[in-house]
Amino acid sequence: MIAILKPGTSEKQRDSLCDWFRSMGLEVHVSQGQFQCIIGLIGDTTKVDINLLESLSIIESVKRITEPFKNANRKFHTQDSVVDVGGGLKIGGGHFEVIAGPCSVESDEQMLEVGQRTKAAGGNLLRGGAFKPRTSPYDFQGLHGEGLNILRRVKQVTGQPIVTEIMNANDLPLFEDVDIIQVGARNMQNFDLLKELGRTDKAILIKRGLANTLKELLMSAEYVMAGGNEKIILCERGIRTFETYTRNTLDLSAIPMLHELTHLPVIADPSHGTGKASLVLPMALAAVAAGADGLMIEVHPDPEHALSDGAQSLRPNQFDDLMQRVRKIREVILA
Amino acid sequence: MIAILKPGTSEKQRDSLCDWFRSMGLEVHVSQGQFQCIIGLIGDTTKVDINLLESLSIIESVKRITEPFKNANRKFHTQDSVVDVGGGLKIGGGHFEVIAGPCSVESDEQMLEVGQRTKAAGGNLLRGGAFKPRTSPYDFQGLHGEGLNILRRVKQVTGQPIVTEIMNANDLPLFEDVDIIQVGARNMQNFDLLKELGRTDKAILIKRGLANTLKELLMSAEYVMAGGNEKIILCERGIRTFETYTRNTLDLSAIPMLHELTHLPVIADPSHGTGKASLVLPMALAAVAAGADGLMIEVHPDPEHALSDGAQSLRPNQFDDLMQRVRKIREVILA
Amino acid sequence: MIAILKPGTSEKQRDSLCDWFRSMGLEVHVSQGQFQCIIGLIGDTTKVDINLLESLSIIESVKRITEPFKNANRKFHTQDSVVDVGGGLKIGGGHFEVIAGPCSVESDEQMLEVGQRTKAAGGNLLRGGAFKPRTSPYDFQGLHGEGLNILRRVKQVTGQPIVTEIMNANDLPLFEDVDIIQVGARNMQNFDLLKELGRTDKAILIKRGLANTLKELLMSAEYVMAGGNEKIILCERGIRTFETYTRNTLDLSAIPMLHELTHLPVIADPSHGTGKASLVLPMALAAVAAGADGLMIEVHPDPEHALSDGAQSLRPNQFDDLMQRVRKIREVILA
Amino acid sequence: MIAILKPGTSEKQRDSLCDWFRSMGLEVHVSQGQFQCIIGLIGDTTKVDINLLESLSIIESVKRITEPFKNANRKFHTQDSVVDVGGGLKIGGGHFEVIAGPCSVESDEQMLEVGQRTKAAGGNLLRGGAFKPRTSPYDFQGLHGEGLNILRRVKQVTGQPIVTEIMNANDLPLFEDVDIIQVGARNMQNFDLLKELGRTDKAILIKRGLANTLKELLMSAEYVMAGGNEKIILCERGIRTFETYTRNTLDLSAIPMLHELTHLPVIADPSHGTGKASLVLPMALAAVAAGADGLMIEVHPDPEHALSDGAQSLRPNQFDDLMQRVRKIREVILA
Repeated sequence: MIAILKPGTSEKQRDSLCDWFRSMGLEVHVSQGQFQCIIGLIGDTTKVDINLLESLSIIESVKRITEPFKNANRKFHTQDSVVDVGGGLKIGGGHFEVIAGPCSVESDEQMLEVGQRTKAAGGNLLRGGAFKPRTSPYDFQGLHGEGLNILRRVKQVTGQPIVTEIMNANDLPLFEDVDIIQVGARNMQNFDLLKELGRTDKAILIKRGLANTLKELLMSAEYVMAGGNEKIILCERGIRTFETYTRNTLDLSAIPMLHELTHLPVIADPSHGTGKASLVLPMALAAVAAGADGLMIEVHPDPEHALSDGAQSLRPNQFDDLMQRVRKIREVILA
Repeated sequence: MIAILKPGTSEKQRDSLCDWFRSMGLEVHVSQGQFQCIIGLIGDTTKVDINLLESLSIIESVKRITEPFKNANRKFHTQDSVVDVGGGLKIGGGHFEVIAGPCSVESDEQMLEVGQRTKAAGGNLLRGGAFKPRTSPYDFQGLHGEGLNILRRVKQVTGQPIVTEIMNANDLPLFEDVDIIQVGARNMQNFDLLKELGRTDKAILIKRGLANTLKELLMSAEYVMAGGNEKIILCERGIRTFETYTRNTLDLSAIPMLHELTHLPVIADPSHGTGKASLVLPMALAAVAAGADGLMIEVHPDPEHALSDGAQSLRPNQFDDLMQRVRKIREVILA
Repeated sequence: MIAILKPGTSEKQRDSLCDWFRSMGLEVHVSQGQFQCIIGLIGDTTKVDINLLESLSIIESVKRITEPFKNANRKFHTQDSVVDVGGGLKIGGGHFEVIAGPCSVESDEQMLEVGQRTKAAGGNLLRGGAFKPRTSPYDFQGLHGEGLNILRRVKQVTGQPIVTEIMNANDLPLFEDVDIIQVGARNMQNFDLLKELGRTDKAILIKRGLANTLKELLMSAEYVMAGGNEKIILCERGIRTFETYTRNTLDLSAIPMLHELTHLPVIADPSHGTGKASLVLPMALAAVAAGADGLMIEVHPDPEHALSDGAQSLRPNQFDDLMQRVRKIREVILA
Repeated sequence: MIAILKPGTSEKQRDSLCDWFRSMGLEVHVSQGQFQCIIGLIGDTTKVDINLLESLSIIESVKRITEPFKNANRKFHTQDSVVDVGGGLKIGGGHFEVIAGPCSVESDEQMLEVGQRTKAAGGNLLRGGAFKPRTSPYDFQGLHGEGLNILRRVKQVTGQPIVTEIMNANDLPLFEDVDIIQVGARNMQNFDLLKELGRTDKAILIKRGLANTLKELLMSAEYVMAGGNEKIILCERGIRTFETYTRNTLDLSAIPMLHELTHLPVIADPSHGTGKASLVLPMALAAVAAGADGLMIEVHPDPEHALSDGAQSLRPNQFDDLMQRVRKIREVILA
């Protein structure tokens, strides 16, 4: 970390600042120029509060050289993390899986049909929302506990590990049979929820917030990891931009960029990421070409009657086609 | 609400759709052109799920004419709401108040000094954070229950109603003596938290999220109001833009725009909104000139040692000056 | 186009508005509800000024059903356009080409080396900037006419058609031997330049502006096409978002989305789009998987001494590798 | 400027880099830590190309301490600039003026009525567009030379200096009688146009681009100033955000922020900045309270028939009211 002092800072102020840095266990290097004094700090600077530092009247600016995330940082953990997601399946470090299913869990029939169809096509994990974050209080909010019961029953038939979203840590007891707990984009910075998930031993899938940076996404992973749970999967699901033809803008550069910054696996959700069924196939293939460790795809047996997000759902036969092409792109990437 | 059908929609499909609309209690007007069929829907369309509608294969597009928010809508409640905030004070409908205090509660001494100084200057409400949402798990997270105890003790001395942020509905029992419960920008779409606050009778201050629209802010207010609690104050606190000289971009047009859309009071937070102490005064005056019903200002007795956000805090004597000028702008506005 | 009238609009006002629409050659359908009157307009509405319409006091809102772009619209020209780019090469409609070269033209040696190396690898078109738009007046602005001379001499050796940026219509006489004239992101809405290019018979490559929507990009194409020049290639080169690890955010969903909206070919520039050499390969492959009709790749013989944008340039051997993988992804896509 | 070298950089590479810096006339301070080497550069670093530097393989990152703008920088020119705008009027350094008029020049009658009405109310400068940048080639593009003739004739009657937009440097001969030449938001980075304007002695009003930062705005001013013309007025006119109720988001914090960064005068355009007539008054007052050196307000005798942008135009009597309130806010600010 580098701190640049304001011109005119007295020697006494500078020394007192340096003493304070040393009291935090940091090594301090002072480079006093004619006009400007630059202080280099070496050691564990993740605990230095950069906002506090910038607020001091003698500080011109502060620049981190090392990243504020530690457990998630590729520099300190060079090998890819492999996350065990149940049913003998893994994601990351060369293990690639596709999570498929409808946006909302509606009935046993619906989930069973989707589960069997997607499983047959190679969609090894099943998703479906039981707790739905909706912008309007008047929109359908999910089947809650009953939705989780449906997922459990379908899992017993198809053997697919299940992935579903949590909105409130108080609901954790209901998630006992869930294999991957999803933190939705709007909860990416619900720090209390992240802390609670850090105390579980579940795989946690964290979706990037609509206007959040990759650093903020990694800091959210860091919240969970600081609690002891290192089973994190990151998910790019589209960010908010000025474009209106697509619901969001799927930032595929996040995939190779995150792979440089962190050892955690990264998957993409082209269904939410685009909001249009016709764009799901090309963007799924693009995500795989960009190096994604997995995909999350919305599939609905009858998209025209889906209770939510039908506009972006594939029909099972479209999903079959997608899986075949995904496998071919994977072959090129792995070659 | 208007739904435009895709060219080629059959008469049978159109009629079946119209029947479905009627089953929701809506009046249906069909305008069949040579190429395009337009369906007008009259009635309580807030309960129509626009995403679902757009997902139907025969729908080209859907447009709301009326807003999706109802309780918060100025059209159905033309008079300004006045929110009682304790201590005989009110906000909204011509009642203007300034909330002042440090970002974080640190000690009795700190809060007492700030409380007495700001009260003397006309800052009738006291703020201070006990639960702090921080991007990094390694940053200071607030004094929690002890912070609330400090606020309570200072309130007994200065008589100022207190304003502080909640991050988790489970902490509600600790907020019994709090006068205004603040929902922070990152929790603006924590729908479970909003629902719980809808069951309380506390005044709720909702801060606009960093990348949220005014419509989304109003839908969050609607979540609380749908639960029965209509004591809502909206707060513009800066949105994320590409500008980096300021921490956020304070969107002052939100103030008159919200006043057109809703009857709820609207205040501004120029401290978080700019992140720079030197911009707080001009932007506070501008907010008042734009019609704000109140201000939230960070004041710290010794900004250089604030544990967080010191860069944007005013010293008590700067706050005195601000209050004097705010009063003069109010006079011009009310004239 | 649909216009919704404000409640309370008189019959006389409504009829006068309808007469005005009819005077513009439009067919008018009035649907008068109890509270709301909806007017449907059929015909060539591209000439209706939507801002003007929205400004009328009796109009609540206006919604286009058809797009404001006509020549570029896939609806009126369902087959892919194929653009002849010189040297017997084509882009679009199944024809895929890679444009490679350094950001700035520096010398004959540099351009000749890059030209020969990229040609050998399958980079059939050569790029290099002679007029450089730079944020600072103190940065290198390009070799101007001399840069174009260098490009011409290298073209005589390698036979590669050349692609280079224009900043000022007055420079057009210098561009006689240029095969594709590039309009840079910052000039995407330099309407006078676009109009001038509409009077030429050169292939025009239009780069999407940093904060522009796809509709605005298509309207810029429309400016050129309205002048009679239909040889347009669109280029996604990254948009401005809040992310800072990457210089821009390459919006690959623009590729399939534009393919739905327009018949014009669409290429991607992962070099400017990411600003990081290490991300160019994965994003190039992803762009191809998403259906791009071509790529634009920065290649420099010695990226460490490039006069601009070296951080995102590939070395020739990295480009060789990229071309091999691109061909394999193309095979999967075309299968 | 500070350059941080990558770990593992050899002594020889470091020395060769330092020699290169010295060859540019810079003073070089090396601070070699155990892991990291930091190089401080003192002198005129505005001429260092930061992109080039970042592209070198031995550079970890580069940070400017001083700003890249020099002529516009308050640090090197502490006193407010006062720009002479004709007719004995000045803007900046305590001189405040309001520019009023319609978006487009339509006729002598229209301009004369607006000119006389706004002049009477205290709007000392007259605006009106003759060259109109329009997103669609099918929208009205302005009266061009005839529009400028109308402005000239009205100026002879009312004595108001005139302000109008240029889109193409080739049109400069037509602008001889124009007092302030406006560079529109979409041309803010039309660097060739800026260079040409730097060779004139006209007052130049530069509007901030829709997605541009304040630093970029200042660099555009720097382009004009580098050519020798220091008569620059900056104008905040709203930036693109995710909000849709307002056409743009008027960033009023730009006013005090720019006043810290530069000595150039700063005005605000609440008409374009909000796109809604009902928001013009509150935002105009807020801009004045934030310290604006002037305002630009759209006024149209008959907004319902304006050929463009009528939705945001005030009627003359609304402008009278605005001017009265503006004067009162000015009094508070100057007190």
